[in-house]
Amino acid sequence: MSETGNAPVRLDFQKGNGLLPAIAQDHESGKVLMLAYINEASWAKTLETGEAHYWSRTRQEIWHKGGTSGHVQKVREVFVDCDQDTVLFRVEQVGGAACHTGYESCFHHKVDRDGRATVVGEKIFDPEKVYGK
Amino acid sequence: MSETGNAPVRLDFQKGNGLLPAIAQDHESGKVLMLAYINEASWAKTLETGEAHYWSRTRQEIWHKGGTSGHVQKVREVFVDCDQDTVLFRVEQVGGAACHTGYESCFHHKVDRDGRATVVGEKIFDPEKVYGK
Repeated sequence: MSETGNAPVRLDFQKGNGLLPAIAQDHESGKVLMLAYINEASWAKTLETGEAHYWSRTRQEIWHKGGTSGHVQKVREVFVDCDQDTVLFRVEQVGGAACHTGYESCFHHKVDRDGRATVVGEKIFDPEKVYGK
Repeated sequence: MSETGNAPVRLDFQKGNGLLPAIAQDHESGKVLMLAYINEASWAKTLETGEAHYWSRTRQEIWHKGGTSGHVQKVREVFVDCDQDTVLFRVEQVGGAACHTGYESCFHHKVDRDGRATVVGEKIFDPEKVYGK
């Protein structure tokens, strides 16, 4: 991509067989909240609406994050990386938690050098109440 | 993964056909520096050495980040996400720049709502001098 001026972004969707990773980061705290995938349609929808849309690999459909729970991600800034195969959404996470388990971040397991994980952080919401599961 | 205690991490490498995304974030500033991929061997090597090792999809080999430039990533903290298919390395980026173009972050193109990108940030190093290209 050009290093100067104002150039149209052409994400390299082919590289990921139609899907590219999108990182969601809290725009204030800088905490990395989650990683999900986008296809071309969800990318367009995100830019158009200002709310994060991903591609659900399990459901095989466009996933408006927070569409069920109300915990949408208001996209404050969007960045693409140097080889245009990853995007970064800096978001305001409505409800304060990005993870379907109720934690602020999906990255709430910290790994030690022996490869063992411990939960860090606190649950912001009870998923049973939010999703009725 | 268990929500309590101290459990061994079993990354779901099968989900990504052997490769999973790894996000590198500056451990102090919180800036997202880059995204690359890990296979099982590079994951083990990262935990063992405390320096980020990825899998180079172009070279098809284990990539010790900074092995050529000296700009290694000292891994301060490691997190895995809720479905164990993405990892987050919080790192000290030696040399101050993660991107091979000389920028601190690979995410140095900011995208506006019209899908146009502008370069943000400054070059920390001159890639011609570092890589002799």
